[in-house]
Amino acid sequence: MSMAELSSKEFLSQLASKAPIPGGGGAAALGGAVGMALSNMVGNLTTGKKKYQDVEEEVLELLKKGDVVIRELLALIDADAEVFKPLAKAYSLPKGTPEEAQTKAETIEACCKTACSVPMQIMRKACEGIAIHKRMGEIGTVMAVSDVGCGVVFLKAALISAQLNVIINLNSIKDEDYLAATRNEMDILMEQGTVEADDTLEIVMEKLTK
Amino acid sequence: MSMAELSSKEFLSQLASKAPIPGGGGAAALGGAVGMALSNMVGNLTTGKKKYQDVEEEVLELLKKGDVVIRELLALIDADAEVFKPLAKAYSLPKGTPEEAQTKAETIEACCKTACSVPMQIMRKACEGIAIHKRMGEIGTVMAVSDVGCGVVFLKAALISAQLNVIINLNSIKDEDYLAATRNEMDILMEQGTVEADDTLEIVMEKLTK
Repeated sequence: MSMAELSSKEFLSQLASKAPIPGGGGAAALGGAVGMALSNMVGNLTTGKKKYQDVEEEVLELLKKGDVVIRELLALIDADAEVFKPLAKAYSLPKGTPEEAQTKAETIEACCKTACSVPMQIMRKACEGIAIHKRMGEIGTVMAVSDVGCGVVFLKAALISAQLNVIINLNSIKDEDYLAATRNEMDILMEQGTVEADDTLEIVMEKLTK
Repeated sequence: MSMAELSSKEFLSQLASKAPIPGGGGAAALGGAVGMALSNMVGNLTTGKKKYQDVEEEVLELLKKGDVVIRELLALIDADAEVFKPLAKAYSLPKGTPEEAQTKAETIEACCKTACSVPMQIMRKACEGIAIHKRMGEIGTVMAVSDVGCGVVFLKAALISAQLNVIINLNSIKDEDYLAATRNEMDILMEQGTVEADDTLEIVMEKLTK
């Protein structure tokens, strides 16, 4: 059963417990999906309105893209839990002999790379979601523009949370090439996502306060 | 049935639809509760550990406070939906005669004040949650410090989202005293919450990267 099938109350109770999953990665994915749903609400309030018929087609495109991001983020809650299991197992491997110690170190490194791949993917999806929100803030119904603002701050939170999960995994990785490539992509996503999210919030605030 | 009993998937599907509830306020409350659960996870990973026995009692206190905030935020998802109904009704009141127009204006104003009270309460709870995270970041197990960071950015997102929902309601209110008092409290909560959340993230980053 997917964790997205749990009631919010039950998910939160598992999240708050000391059980290792779900953890910060799963929370980032769910919180991002909550944000993404808000841009789609605004899109659904925009389509079919005469006032917005000029942007109808583009809004429908944004809605389709938003649906995909929501589905992907929900799947990443489960993916984050999946990659944790082999990592926990790797940490309990024996390291009595030099061979065992080497196998253990190599297994942990491989598992950390896999564990890293999920929050990296959450960061990519958060950036996609932020870009969708920016455009929705520009062309969607002004009546619900505050919801674009709510959505985008949750996607920015998902981006930052996922980054923290990448960093904690990178701390256990020694492969210099992998570290450099991952840090490089992480920095680009953070820069792009943060700037676009803040721009979106500015658009929202301007429309809300005029 | 409380909306917290819905599966995350179902909640998101209702959120993304053009149905007026849940909206940005409900999303803010749920997103904040997701954040709050993470501080509690860190607390539950801290208690019972010899290394942290000196702070055991304080962590248990933070856990209790965190539980209350989670429960209150979940209840605010439903409260936000409840206050929307009379507001929607008020907007559809007739305004054919001067008396009808006056009754309508007064009813809308009263409903907007009630509608405002929920995101204001979400802002207060988000600030409480952020303060709990800050202390958990200082004294909780360093092993899970990234989760304190994830939690606090979601509570900051809840704070900003709730503020947007306060602002949109204030736009329909004319009572100057109410406006001044609400804006004053809103500004204090934003200032306090933002500073404490950013301080917490700094503590987390320092522990994560040393």
